[in-house]
Amino acid sequence: MIRIGIVGYGNLGKGVELAIKQNSDMKLTYVFTRRAPEDIKLKDSSVKVMHVSDAEKLKNEIDVMILCGGSATDLPEQGPVFARMFNTVDSFDTHAKIPQYFEAVDQASKAAGKVGIISVGWDPGLFSMNRMLAEAVLPQGTEYTFWGRGVSQGHSDAIRRVKGVKGGVQYTIPKDEAIQRVRNGENPNLTTKEKHLRDCYVVVEEGADKAAIEKEIKNMPNYFADYETKVTFISEEELKKNHSAMPHGGFVIRSGNTGENTKHIIEFSLKLDSNPEFTASVLVAAARAAYRLSSEGQSGAKTMFDIPLGYLSIKSAAQLRKELL
Amino acid sequence: MIRIGIVGYGNLGKGVELAIKQNSDMKLTYVFTRRAPEDIKLKDSSVKVMHVSDAEKLKNEIDVMILCGGSATDLPEQGPVFARMFNTVDSFDTHAKIPQYFEAVDQASKAAGKVGIISVGWDPGLFSMNRMLAEAVLPQGTEYTFWGRGVSQGHSDAIRRVKGVKGGVQYTIPKDEAIQRVRNGENPNLTTKEKHLRDCYVVVEEGADKAAIEKEIKNMPNYFADYETKVTFISEEELKKNHSAMPHGGFVIRSGNTGENTKHIIEFSLKLDSNPEFTASVLVAAARAAYRLSSEGQSGAKTMFDIPLGYLSIKSAAQLRKELL
Repeated sequence: MIRIGIVGYGNLGKGVELAIKQNSDMKLTYVFTRRAPEDIKLKDSSVKVMHVSDAEKLKNEIDVMILCGGSATDLPEQGPVFARMFNTVDSFDTHAKIPQYFEAVDQASKAAGKVGIISVGWDPGLFSMNRMLAEAVLPQGTEYTFWGRGVSQGHSDAIRRVKGVKGGVQYTIPKDEAIQRVRNGENPNLTTKEKHLRDCYVVVEEGADKAAIEKEIKNMPNYFADYETKVTFISEEELKKNHSAMPHGGFVIRSGNTGENTKHIIEFSLKLDSNPEFTASVLVAAARAAYRLSSEGQSGAKTMFDIPLGYLSIKSAAQLRKELL
Repeated sequence: MIRIGIVGYGNLGKGVELAIKQNSDMKLTYVFTRRAPEDIKLKDSSVKVMHVSDAEKLKNEIDVMILCGGSATDLPEQGPVFARMFNTVDSFDTHAKIPQYFEAVDQASKAAGKVGIISVGWDPGLFSMNRMLAEAVLPQGTEYTFWGRGVSQGHSDAIRRVKGVKGGVQYTIPKDEAIQRVRNGENPNLTTKEKHLRDCYVVVEEGADKAAIEKEIKNMPNYFADYETKVTFISEEELKKNHSAMPHGGFVIRSGNTGENTKHIIEFSLKLDSNPEFTASVLVAAARAAYRLSSEGQSGAKTMFDIPLGYLSIKSAAQLRKELL
């Protein structure tokens, strides 16, 4: 049994707890929190909750630590700290800062003789793997990533900062017409704006000026001004009932040529009812790979590009060849 | 420069020759044939054509040999023979015999200290990778593979064996309705027959009884009898003009649950205008991986499950992290 620890018990940490139960070769042993441990109620009460500051004492009780903090402030600090003590897996997703984060985790985990797999999830993660694979197979081609339909936390926050707004959610929606053009092999030039529209559901305070709020949202620079944006006003009950899930997904499509202009389309897509639960499931599969790489004597930071695919599976190499090849 | 050799210059071998030109880190050095070498005309006349029996003499001139023979009779014989002399890549695709073929290549390539990557292409190959990846991420779920729209060589041959038939092509077509049910997360039980229909284009000899031929095709056991089968009679010119390409493709869809019954759909699909050219492109990316694994000192038979994904790419690990993660 691979002994897993979780750092951070938010939506992602809860998802990891549930995902571990679907994998019979691993068990959750500890959850670490910055809050008061007694305030955390796990689904499985046999698992111990400890304060993060006590993690070091449990170095020998945990094979892989799954870091479930955010990329803005938690992981840049926690990643290297935990990589100095444990094999780690995280979902660091600030694309522009990945090289720098990789170096920090690499130094720490190499010094400790541990493996730290960074940027695991679906983007970065499964989307990256399919982008890379499609480019390697079709070097002459164009790659398109579409996101959604899914909740964007940043854009939802932006809506909620508008005066008179009580609550709101923003869905990023890929434009069907753009996807069709790519699938048809037209190789169009498309900006992020041309590929997506922004669909907002907004609850206003009593007596608020809806027309003014809609105008302010639609003209908000960076967030909405350059996009096709829809604003729908709904009641607080409706927001709670129909918009509290965290769906997401998207499409990675590569359109390329071989030979003398023979066309091919490679497409990978996800339709996720819960972004954090799905991301958690990818983290858990990567924890298995971290354990195996570490058992082989490897160390240092890794990404999904560095892992033999079979290491993610509970099945043996012979079983994979027989059943899934 | 990675020096590549090709064994067998049919559709697949020709595809490999073209694919190598798209990859600036490799070059084609020799093509080996069982035919008279002087009868083979390559696209690039600077490459030497040799008889297969001369391959052994060129052990030091070739880094990876790409075996482009068929799975029925060529590869079971050639695979282990060449694995004793070279790093090899092949597209062995008789699913049921993969474990046995793996063992034969493994023994040969281990003895020689070489790497032999088997069963490369899209199914087995990219489809297998996505089946495995999706199962590892969503262990509670159901996997569906749909093939097509594409030419089935076996079924086309079966049509051509019917008396009075001069020529013909069979397309396997995935049923839209079945795909939609899977995408909706209904988790239906579907047999291969329920997922596909068989679309036949047939040229008959003058004076042949079309009604009798259509009946014979539709009732042919194993091939057509259990399927929804369409037969369309066309002229010889039409067959040549509209049905001489070798398109193929398909869908691998996994529908699974996390947490407390949260649904997710992972889908991978291919739409290929030329099955052999695309398969060749996958073989060439795998040749790069064979070269790298061998340079590291690894040996033995491998599959796509054993290869760190990044080894397939011309880009360095740092470049991949920066550009594609």
